Amino acid sequence: MSFVTGLRCRECGKDAPLAAVHVCEFCFGPLEVVYDYDAIAGVTSRARIENGPRSLWRYADLLPELPDAAPGDRVDLGAGLTPLVPAPRLGAALGLSDLWIKNDTVNPSYSFKDRVVTVALSAARSLGFEVAACASTGNLANSVAAHAAHAGMDAYLFIPRDLEETKVIASSVYGPNLVAVDGTYDDVNRLCGEVAGEFPWAFVNVNVRPYYAEGSKTIGFEIAEQLGWRLPDHVVAPMASGSMLVKIDKAFSELTKVGLVDEGQWRISGAQASGCAPISATLKGEGDVIRPVKPDTIAKSLAIGTPADGYYAIDAVQRTGGSMEDVTDAEVVEGIRLLASTEGVFAETAGGVTVATLRKLVAQGAVDPAGRTVAVISGIGLKTTDAISGMARPTFEIGAGLGDFEEALSNAGRGTTPLASA
Amino acid sequence: MSFVTGLRCRECGKDAPLAAVHVCEFCFGPLEVVYDYDAIAGVTSRARIENGPRSLWRYADLLPELPDAAPGDRVDLGAGLTPLVPAPRLGAALGLSDLWIKNDTVNPSYSFKDRVVTVALSAARSLGFEVAACASTGNLANSVAAHAAHAGMDAYLFIPRDLEETKVIASSVYGPNLVAVDGTYDDVNRLCGEVAGEFPWAFVNVNVRPYYAEGSKTIGFEIAEQLGWRLPDHVVAPMASGSMLVKIDKAFSELTKVGLVDEGQWRISGAQASGCAPISATLKGEGDVIRPVKPDTIAKSLAIGTPADGYYAIDAVQRTGGSMEDVTDAEVVEGIRLLASTEGVFAETAGGVTVATLRKLVAQGAVDPAGRTVAVISGIGLKTTDAISGMARPTFEIGAGLGDFEEALSNAGRGTTPLASA
Repeated sequence: MSFVTGLRCRECGKDAPLAAVHVCEFCFGPLEVVYDYDAIAGVTSRARIENGPRSLWRYADLLPELPDAAPGDRVDLGAGLTPLVPAPRLGAALGLSDLWIKNDTVNPSYSFKDRVVTVALSAARSLGFEVAACASTGNLANSVAAHAAHAGMDAYLFIPRDLEETKVIASSVYGPNLVAVDGTYDDVNRLCGEVAGEFPWAFVNVNVRPYYAEGSKTIGFEIAEQLGWRLPDHVVAPMASGSMLVKIDKAFSELTKVGLVDEGQWRISGAQASGCAPISATLKGEGDVIRPVKPDTIAKSLAIGTPADGYYAIDAVQRTGGSMEDVTDAEVVEGIRLLASTEGVFAETAGGVTVATLRKLVAQGAVDPAGRTVAVISGIGLKTTDAISGMARPTFEIGAGLGDFEEALSNAGRGTTPLASA
Repeated sequence: MSFVTGLRCRECGKDAPLAAVHVCEFCFGPLEVVYDYDAIAGVTSRARIENGPRSLWRYADLLPELPDAAPGDRVDLGAGLTPLVPAPRLGAALGLSDLWIKNDTVNPSYSFKDRVVTVALSAARSLGFEVAACASTGNLANSVAAHAAHAGMDAYLFIPRDLEETKVIASSVYGPNLVAVDGTYDDVNRLCGEVAGEFPWAFVNVNVRPYYAEGSKTIGFEIAEQLGWRLPDHVVAPMASGSMLVKIDKAFSELTKVGLVDEGQWRISGAQASGCAPISATLKGEGDVIRPVKPDTIAKSLAIGTPADGYYAIDAVQRTGGSMEDVTDAEVVEGIRLLASTEGVFAETAGGVTVATLRKLVAQGAVDPAGRTVAVISGIGLKTTDAISGMARPTFEIGAGLGDFEEALSNAGRGTTPLASA
């Protein structure tokens, strides 16, 4: 059952048909999927969702499955329904009494990008596409490659030529056509815009972007369901294009609109790396216009200097009473360490950005210490180990005898508490 | 509610109390947890489990939570309930019409070890332990470090000194005491046996091993539930100590015993790397005694030369009509590539062992082509990228212009299908 009725321009409000288009032909504004919320409210229910698949597809009523979708169109590797875990130890370290972690590292290709890609490629198949494509430096390429392989679709992934070997492997293992471009990421992006105009391929973040972006709403849907169908007081999310944050806010609005949660107030705050903070710099008062920046940060998955959804992110944050901040690379590394050592979650640099920003916002009084706060951890630390290679040093280096260990403990001034005296 | 009544020796049948012991004091046989299955059958049900937590703790009735466990003892990062995905494309490549993948890469520290560690440390806390420990070269250390951090327990992880930097980081980021030992993994193991005798620490795979091992049953529980409370015809699992395979078989027996599934027949088969195949070599006829081997394989997480549960694994495989095989390192790499490119799942070397072994078993006629087969993929490929570094080569290397791309496609003899002619 599909409740999608069309596309509509976010700027001028003109309607567009359900097709592979992402900008308004009248004003070049971004197109967004339109739903029949009254029809959804009449059908959906908490029980219907809880009895659905154990993946983000349990929220299909509020996702852009197309009216003429065939049963086999869904490209599903099991993305979503990731753990929402209480984080009392990180909360104590930051001064928050009710903190939760949304752990999106345990998605099929280990980042939240699987949410947008499963939705984008499912729509793409309903629209008749047989080839998946994207421009990417990391997580998105991994996810498109994985989902395309699972669906038996050809994939063309465009990457800058000087990409790290690990990131290349984490895409190429799935067998896509990997196109290494002699140029910067901006060059790759521009090329993909041209290729999308010439070839009948579904570029997930270009021509099918309206469907793609809707996938991020499922983070918000899951947070609410996992809190017992209650909205949190505050969500802190990382920002690259700004789209994820915007869609979490939209998710909470939709859940309220169709009656799945009671009316409530939430705040949403955004996190950036100081080396690429065009959105937070604008909100913090450096003028009204988002100025493009040349990224210089270890948080490469957030390094978008010209954020497509920046203004919408600023609107969502201001409207809900949230904040934005950005953090240095040193703070990012400390954020990764703090999250892992207090809660056992190993995040990539983007997760370090989120945790370090949350710490900064708490210190500024921008987060209610007693409120229910959720931090979105968007990707796995195993993809960005370069950023924390300084942690590759053992606590003790010893010989292989019991005496060697006891001596090392003693030298370190540790109580050894042998069993005999326990 | 606990249904655990004690420990019992698998060899001589003598009972032992619920404590941190793992070998029988009479015959030195391995101790195993004993349950009151009649009581479980009277209480458990499919609905009770389905309404339980979205983690392996939904099967708590059949796990060793101790009678005097306090509510806060459970150490839970959300392990388990990983996707069971249909694998039609891999099935077609292998000649199987109903193949499924149990994707255990999406656990909290990205391997099935999270299953055993969450169970072991929960029992350890109920037994009064405040320190978690293990000997390991990889996945187990990562998992103990993550769960200990989450629970606020001190952790001592003993590793060989020459471990790869990535594996060290993937443990040290969580903040444990990392003890690098100047010696081989066998030296580390021997040292841990000594330390366990002197310090009041819970070594998950030594003194609390009976509880730890039960965690692997949850792979079997989940497979049955995810198949709609039906047992599969055949499961293929990787073998290191052999324990996981033994416990999957036990899980199917227990589900039948307590009435959660109908009586049925299943086969279970075991996969090893030829460079460390002590169990499969024995089953394949090289004598009755499992002879220790010195491992030499890229599948390091399976490189146990003296497998503790080897005889029990042989028993389970023979009793159910399964098989065992082992595969070369080249076949392991091909198995990783085949799984990723057909199904979008990026496995570590152990997963390559499982897929390559399955292929070999199909070719031998040891797997029914029409039967429902499940392959257990136990850990993430991002931890073993060294093994497939040859895949770091792009398909095309081009300049940044549209013409460069079209020329490269043309040179490769690809149809370019431009939009105008589509």
